[in-house]
Amino acid sequence: MLTERDASFMGAALDLARQGLYSTHPNPRVGALVVQGENIVGRGAHLFAGEAHAEVIALAEAGATARGATVYVTLEPCSHQGRTGPCADALIDAGVARVVVAMQDPNPLVAGQGIARLRAAGIPVDLGCGEAESRALNPGFLQRMEKGRPWIRLKQAISLDGAVALGNGQSQWLTGTLARADVQKERARVSAIMVGVGTVLADNPRLAPRLEVPLRRYPVKVVLDTQLRTPADAALFASPGTVWLAHGPEVSAVKRRTLQKAGAELLALPLDGVRLDLRALLQLLAGKQINEVLVEAGPTLASALLRADLVDEWLVYVAPMLLGQGARAVVQLGPFARLAEAPRWQSRGFELLDNDLKWTLRPQEN
Amino acid sequence: MLTERDASFMGAALDLARQGLYSTHPNPRVGALVVQGENIVGRGAHLFAGEAHAEVIALAEAGATARGATVYVTLEPCSHQGRTGPCADALIDAGVARVVVAMQDPNPLVAGQGIARLRAAGIPVDLGCGEAESRALNPGFLQRMEKGRPWIRLKQAISLDGAVALGNGQSQWLTGTLARADVQKERARVSAIMVGVGTVLADNPRLAPRLEVPLRRYPVKVVLDTQLRTPADAALFASPGTVWLAHGPEVSAVKRRTLQKAGAELLALPLDGVRLDLRALLQLLAGKQINEVLVEAGPTLASALLRADLVDEWLVYVAPMLLGQGARAVVQLGPFARLAEAPRWQSRGFELLDNDLKWTLRPQEN
Repeated sequence: MLTERDASFMGAALDLARQGLYSTHPNPRVGALVVQGENIVGRGAHLFAGEAHAEVIALAEAGATARGATVYVTLEPCSHQGRTGPCADALIDAGVARVVVAMQDPNPLVAGQGIARLRAAGIPVDLGCGEAESRALNPGFLQRMEKGRPWIRLKQAISLDGAVALGNGQSQWLTGTLARADVQKERARVSAIMVGVGTVLADNPRLAPRLEVPLRRYPVKVVLDTQLRTPADAALFASPGTVWLAHGPEVSAVKRRTLQKAGAELLALPLDGVRLDLRALLQLLAGKQINEVLVEAGPTLASALLRADLVDEWLVYVAPMLLGQGARAVVQLGPFARLAEAPRWQSRGFELLDNDLKWTLRPQEN
Repeated sequence: MLTERDASFMGAALDLARQGLYSTHPNPRVGALVVQGENIVGRGAHLFAGEAHAEVIALAEAGATARGATVYVTLEPCSHQGRTGPCADALIDAGVARVVVAMQDPNPLVAGQGIARLRAAGIPVDLGCGEAESRALNPGFLQRMEKGRPWIRLKQAISLDGAVALGNGQSQWLTGTLARADVQKERARVSAIMVGVGTVLADNPRLAPRLEVPLRRYPVKVVLDTQLRTPADAALFASPGTVWLAHGPEVSAVKRRTLQKAGAELLALPLDGVRLDLRALLQLLAGKQINEVLVEAGPTLASALLRADLVDEWLVYVAPMLLGQGARAVVQLGPFARLAEAPRWQSRGFELLDNDLKWTLRPQEN
């Protein structure tokens, strides 16, 4: 039976899980709390793949006081021997009295077996406390496990009149320093940052998050580059993080070799019409353990993703300015004959960043 | 000398002033508080033109306890015999010991004379406590007194891609019920609601605020109608509130008579090019005691006002939807060759109304 007290402790475990927001890739963000009576005696957050899981850290802090304790964990304890030992066994060995789990791990290597193992050892397990919050922390990991594709977060900076650049391409900068700093955090949390080659050719971006402290892990930089037009001296080769160039079937061996020498890993993809097959790309990325992707798209890539219903979340930074006639529209969709055909989104959060608005949207559920 | 205590009592007086938000036209919203020692002994809000001023109501409540009291008033007490007697004299007669005034009344009939009269009677007056808040309550009245024109609040409902309607004109509704209910309150507070005749012909709007209770005062409905194309059976003639049709120099006597018979008051205006002279119109409206104007503009009127730098405040209701290619852009400005030429606005407040965003913007100060 779950109580208010359980919800409160699970809240603290979720706070711990959030410590891994920027670093757990490709693993999920998980927190654990060991509670003896009314006292928190152990705290753990999983921070880096290959290092200790949250439960193990929390049990280590608790030591002997873990015996008879209740453990709160934001994701089902693992049951398999991965890079670390199974957490379910660690909980059993520590002699804990009860385990509260926010949600089952959809990872087929776990998928209920962790909970089953605990229960088989006579430890009662309560499931579902804080599930929504835990899901919200790991949209990419969960979608990869459940649907075999990463979580696609489309990010765009637009004007009040819905444009991303003047007609001549000028777009630096629409938003202010606070909004741009926020984008660095959005970059740092994801497994991969994705752009179209048009953006590489136009802006030559570094695509690595710039934060005050160097990161231990940098996102992969993925370029959709059907013809391999990325220059070998592009800035993204010099910035931290691996470069993956997704290309079509017909590219010259010379280009391939030049770009591989520049440091790129090449991903050969089928075409869907004249463009790369986006679903095939996402499937491939999921296979390479990519959880969340931040797509820093121009109108072409954004429209392609929207048309294919592949955008899970849309981060729109709106600058209160007018780019006027002839400016580049944020997307090329429509025309629509009836208002009912126009795509609608749901507001999931918003924030004023100095003078700009950050609006988080999700597709409207039908 | 002003103290924290003064600021706190002035805050309460400002709250009283806000009670007149929907009704004081053409007068300013004013509140007054009579404080004896630590106790509030009188409260007053001016509610309707021709009825008692805030100071008089507050003094009446205080009665004999007003003697030796401090009075907080959000606008300089009047010194002239208007529809009611001068409030400065009432304060003197009541024997108050001190008056704290948020701001001087720019009305040339007052303009410091109320304060001078109090001081001449030996009553110390402190000025400037809560001035910013008092100004914010009366942008229209103050601008009319100070610049001879009303406060222009442009209101538009737009999509995320900066459009107000599909290419075929469909626009009902972009925003949800909460945003539309909010517009009714924005309508109710202003002296006048203004539209172009294009909106009358396309949507046949009533233009009267629909609120749960009937209003004692309805805003004037102003139509910019150069050629007098408003139909005599337009819905706005049947809804509460006076109709003013602003027209150009060349309109037929027949049209004039027909529309006058329908209930319109006609305002003859000079042209500025092919359009009505907007500055002349605003000057004329100020002369007719119009304080705040809510402009429910289509792209043409909005662009004309923006180009003429006549928009004091921009209320943008953004619906998170895409109207796509061929949709009607919110404004027709530009094209701009450099980002520095693109007009920028300052965020002055925002609110999520169900799924839509209400963003209040003011022109960026240079």
